[in-house]
Amino acid sequence: MRVGVLTGGGDCPGLNAVIRGLVRKGVQEYAYEFVGYRDGWRGPLEGDLIPLDIPAVRGILPRGGTILGSSRTNPLGQPDGIRRIKDNLAKDEIDALVTIGGEDTLGVAAKLYEEYGIKCVGVPKTIDNDLSATDYTFGFDTAVGIATEAIDRLHTTAESHMRVLVVEVMGRHAGWIALHSGLAGGANVILIPEQRFDVEQVCAWVSSRFRASYAPIVVVAEGAMPQDGDAVLKDGSLDSFGHVRLSGVGEWLAREIERRTGKEARTTVLGHVQRGGTPSAFDRWLATRFGLHAVDAVRDGDFGMMVALRGTDIVRVPIAEATARLKTVDPALYEEAGVFFG
Amino acid sequence: MRVGVLTGGGDCPGLNAVIRGLVRKGVQEYAYEFVGYRDGWRGPLEGDLIPLDIPAVRGILPRGGTILGSSRTNPLGQPDGIRRIKDNLAKDEIDALVTIGGEDTLGVAAKLYEEYGIKCVGVPKTIDNDLSATDYTFGFDTAVGIATEAIDRLHTTAESHMRVLVVEVMGRHAGWIALHSGLAGGANVILIPEQRFDVEQVCAWVSSRFRASYAPIVVVAEGAMPQDGDAVLKDGSLDSFGHVRLSGVGEWLAREIERRTGKEARTTVLGHVQRGGTPSAFDRWLATRFGLHAVDAVRDGDFGMMVALRGTDIVRVPIAEATARLKTVDPALYEEAGVFFG
Amino acid sequence: MRVGVLTGGGDCPGLNAVIRGLVRKGVQEYAYEFVGYRDGWRGPLEGDLIPLDIPAVRGILPRGGTILGSSRTNPLGQPDGIRRIKDNLAKDEIDALVTIGGEDTLGVAAKLYEEYGIKCVGVPKTIDNDLSATDYTFGFDTAVGIATEAIDRLHTTAESHMRVLVVEVMGRHAGWIALHSGLAGGANVILIPEQRFDVEQVCAWVSSRFRASYAPIVVVAEGAMPQDGDAVLKDGSLDSFGHVRLSGVGEWLAREIERRTGKEARTTVLGHVQRGGTPSAFDRWLATRFGLHAVDAVRDGDFGMMVALRGTDIVRVPIAEATARLKTVDPALYEEAGVFFG
Amino acid sequence: MRVGVLTGGGDCPGLNAVIRGLVRKGVQEYAYEFVGYRDGWRGPLEGDLIPLDIPAVRGILPRGGTILGSSRTNPLGQPDGIRRIKDNLAKDEIDALVTIGGEDTLGVAAKLYEEYGIKCVGVPKTIDNDLSATDYTFGFDTAVGIATEAIDRLHTTAESHMRVLVVEVMGRHAGWIALHSGLAGGANVILIPEQRFDVEQVCAWVSSRFRASYAPIVVVAEGAMPQDGDAVLKDGSLDSFGHVRLSGVGEWLAREIERRTGKEARTTVLGHVQRGGTPSAFDRWLATRFGLHAVDAVRDGDFGMMVALRGTDIVRVPIAEATARLKTVDPALYEEAGVFFG
Repeated sequence: MRVGVLTGGGDCPGLNAVIRGLVRKGVQEYAYEFVGYRDGWRGPLEGDLIPLDIPAVRGILPRGGTILGSSRTNPLGQPDGIRRIKDNLAKDEIDALVTIGGEDTLGVAAKLYEEYGIKCVGVPKTIDNDLSATDYTFGFDTAVGIATEAIDRLHTTAESHMRVLVVEVMGRHAGWIALHSGLAGGANVILIPEQRFDVEQVCAWVSSRFRASYAPIVVVAEGAMPQDGDAVLKDGSLDSFGHVRLSGVGEWLAREIERRTGKEARTTVLGHVQRGGTPSAFDRWLATRFGLHAVDAVRDGDFGMMVALRGTDIVRVPIAEATARLKTVDPALYEEAGVFFG
Repeated sequence: MRVGVLTGGGDCPGLNAVIRGLVRKGVQEYAYEFVGYRDGWRGPLEGDLIPLDIPAVRGILPRGGTILGSSRTNPLGQPDGIRRIKDNLAKDEIDALVTIGGEDTLGVAAKLYEEYGIKCVGVPKTIDNDLSATDYTFGFDTAVGIATEAIDRLHTTAESHMRVLVVEVMGRHAGWIALHSGLAGGANVILIPEQRFDVEQVCAWVSSRFRASYAPIVVVAEGAMPQDGDAVLKDGSLDSFGHVRLSGVGEWLAREIERRTGKEARTTVLGHVQRGGTPSAFDRWLATRFGLHAVDAVRDGDFGMMVALRGTDIVRVPIAEATARLKTVDPALYEEAGVFFG
Repeated sequence: MRVGVLTGGGDCPGLNAVIRGLVRKGVQEYAYEFVGYRDGWRGPLEGDLIPLDIPAVRGILPRGGTILGSSRTNPLGQPDGIRRIKDNLAKDEIDALVTIGGEDTLGVAAKLYEEYGIKCVGVPKTIDNDLSATDYTFGFDTAVGIATEAIDRLHTTAESHMRVLVVEVMGRHAGWIALHSGLAGGANVILIPEQRFDVEQVCAWVSSRFRASYAPIVVVAEGAMPQDGDAVLKDGSLDSFGHVRLSGVGEWLAREIERRTGKEARTTVLGHVQRGGTPSAFDRWLATRFGLHAVDAVRDGDFGMMVALRGTDIVRVPIAEATARLKTVDPALYEEAGVFFG
Repeated sequence: MRVGVLTGGGDCPGLNAVIRGLVRKGVQEYAYEFVGYRDGWRGPLEGDLIPLDIPAVRGILPRGGTILGSSRTNPLGQPDGIRRIKDNLAKDEIDALVTIGGEDTLGVAAKLYEEYGIKCVGVPKTIDNDLSATDYTFGFDTAVGIATEAIDRLHTTAESHMRVLVVEVMGRHAGWIALHSGLAGGANVILIPEQRFDVEQVCAWVSSRFRASYAPIVVVAEGAMPQDGDAVLKDGSLDSFGHVRLSGVGEWLAREIERRTGKEARTTVLGHVQRGGTPSAFDRWLATRFGLHAVDAVRDGDFGMMVALRGTDIVRVPIAEATARLKTVDPALYEEAGVFFG
């Protein structure tokens, strides 16, 4: 059995741990051979691959990123993309393909399996934790940990200067990182993409916190929007690709808070540091187990399936089901956090 | 409604987060009054309490330990213990008691509820993660993180000197910390209390690792035992309480590995650093939610129950059920990890 | 002897360690009494003070920020400012004033001492490390550590996507944080305010790194400027105070690199996380010693002096001398780092 | 010019940063060729070497340990050791030898230079910071940081249980790690090898701390000794090499404190975690600069010299001078810390 592996989409701590888990178990227990396709779907599109044996995966467990490289290349958007993949997999004598990625990457895998019979097994990856069918995805715990540590640090600055500190964290469509890091960091306001926010309400919470003689921390997901946000977040300038640039919501919110409450406000945009570096212990454990179970799915011929976490068990679910809809923050959960606002 | 709170047993990162969650929600949403009993069951035994209002819980979320103090005092072992607790609760006009603790502390709460009708709600706490009925307990993730970071550090020392490094982690009866930190840290051998180990097998793994030109890390739970361990771990000396002192299994194992393989071996006993200090983001999130849900159980009159984590949900289970048996490592899970041994 | 203490300017990890050192030694060894003025020079201007005894400084060593609060209030810019301070110090029966702050705060202290005979002792504080007369200031090591950890994390993201990552760190007038964190983090380009940079040269380094099959990290101090920077960094918009907003140099540089090299570039602006949170061990040690030695200077009647680090010794230097000129990065030191560029 | 490099003695965070600094500058600026001898002096004794080019040193800056391996092999203790080294260096066509190590390793280098004219340049390395002639050695800051973080964690456990926590840190002959981490961690007692301690005095400090309602942390260097320590620390058992085993001073001290004060005491022995893992930013900066300056010393023909830190400058001093005597803790410095005892 010769197994191809690829990692697609944004990088995420734990990708290397999945690869190591796959290869260690596949080689040692099932005598499989592995190859790694480079840079996500670009690899099988162009037949760009490297051998993956046990020495190749030594020492990669604690390393962030992916030794295979990644890209957002989508074969569905390319003329003849699927056919070229099929041809290259055949040429490379690949019996099964393990695709590690998010909604887009797995969506291609689902299509390849359903429409063309390519033997795919999926491993879910999204730092945003917004994939259905799994309790958690690896990388999320690391990102939450980094954001929480930053919030811890910002508390002392906020208190020393009696200033508002706005922290913009990742989460374009789902507020999981904001919710978890905001709760863990003791934020006084948490804003998520799932619910448009009322900037007046935010200012009321901010002011109430100052009245109690404390300085507030506002955690805002990058995708959170004020009630009239589509209008206000456009600043008219163009980015290097010619798109209209949106002001970051964090910057905008700090300016609004200053204007409306008269208090100094500062913004920190955590950005890419949330997705780089060594994975947390939880993410290494989860990613390693995903790798071990994905190779078992290959052995069982359980194709079109994805490994997923349910409680403390690793289960298998149809890839198509997992990518059908985004897992967003439940309103009840967001309300639960609301006790700490203000 | 006047609610008493106590924390019992060994300290654990996240205790303060539970207390804060309880008080914030109880005061703000239900207008409850809270008092904290000091040092576990010693508090209600002696009527030693402090008021717990919102200012008292400010800033404690990121702090390890417990602002209420803890102890291993067990009222069941004291003449008249239960009656004194009943009398003091009555005198202090306590309507409900939230007990945060492990098997022993919760066992007392279960008995108080079942036999004497005292209105108890439990919050599970054990750094060892060995309580049934909950997927995880807070403190465990922090401990695993600390142990994993230590293992990361020890790898470089092992490789530089081509030495065996034995890391003894917590876990007297269950190997969860060893298993998770061993997997996350890339250990080459993981030994847990649930399965007696064969020291010859350990030495074979160690030697095989050296043959591959790498130096091994052996993670051993403090309660792990060699097959003939009862005999070999006694060193005959007495500790300060007059008990026969057992050599730590880590020290013993390093000596055996040196003797049998001829390789240098060193031991690190992580000890109390695993249970102190600021909780991880995951533990703060879990502990905070346990606090919020425990006060909801009080409001619902759901006594004799304990909050627990199932997947990503907080549920309620009878305390008695949760403490009935230890949650040990499933043999299948341990075998899964075995692919990395050697 | 009754000693006033104030902390002025931006907050900085270690301020609390200085305060604790002062009070512990002053109370225990010299039986001094201490009061803390709140929010920098605002405190003595308005007579706003709190008592500082040993219980007040317990547990503050590891805490970032300052328990006294800080502000950028400058009495020299206020009508009658100096006289009000003199009057309040007299009213509060202050025998000596320990001022902990940067160039501005210490400048006021120097003036108060020289022109009005107020008995000041200075403790240098700047996260930017740009004060003359001391080898290091506390807070700097913490900031460098945080920036270095961020750079470590960004390496994996840069490599996985073969992207340029630009990291903007603090340093408006001096490049110490950029230089130290860039060296420690293995950056491929380091840009500092002391030397205008040639964006073509930066792009050449970036391209050379890609040719070696690695992705570059560019560390840029917030005050670094391209050769024609005054013009290009203005984006024409106004900030909330009506000032023309300068684009951050990091954002600007990433756009230029994209435009000129055709490679994707992303920016991370670390911002306030660099100055918050618990101080590093080095900063706690340095700040504690500064506190101990400042109270000795008070005892010795050595006013108008500031404590400073020289090698491993704490010495005293005239405040006026220390604030006379900015300590910028020596061109030879910057050139030394240049071996790693490209 | 062909330069040999070796790393000797215990491993230490920063060794790889030195090697990288040497090779980057030597190859790029001076077109030198480098080879690495493996496992300290064993390498040149046995002619065991590997090529060291720029690809070989990529990515090693943040990695602990040493890619060259290390050992305590001492050629002076071997018949014909020096001659074999001379012969191998000649055979390998080595023009200069950079030796990175502590007292022992550098002592050999000094002898090789002085007595046999071998062109050695030294780089000081000791985690204990006890080498004369340099303000700091790399690795020390990392060790102090790890110990301080452990002490931070232990505070919460000590307070929660009102227990004494004894932390044994590295330092066989010098108390630098104990002194710095004890000061930075807010220890209540610090014990160093330079001054025999009175266990009654330690117990008095411990008891005084409890009277103030706080729990004490005692930091003790592994080489610290009670006044009558030679007798009491022998427990009579033999280690695996047949030597009489000394009880660790930490364990012994905890038992004595329990016996004399009646308070519970626990010991944590930090051990090898202090010397492993990624170097701190300070240590990476220092080690990198040592590497850069050592290769400059080779270029200048400045043999028999060692690089050293003085203030913020890297200077050169005769190796022989640097290894002539141990740099121990100055009694005045230890007394300065005493204000925090009790």
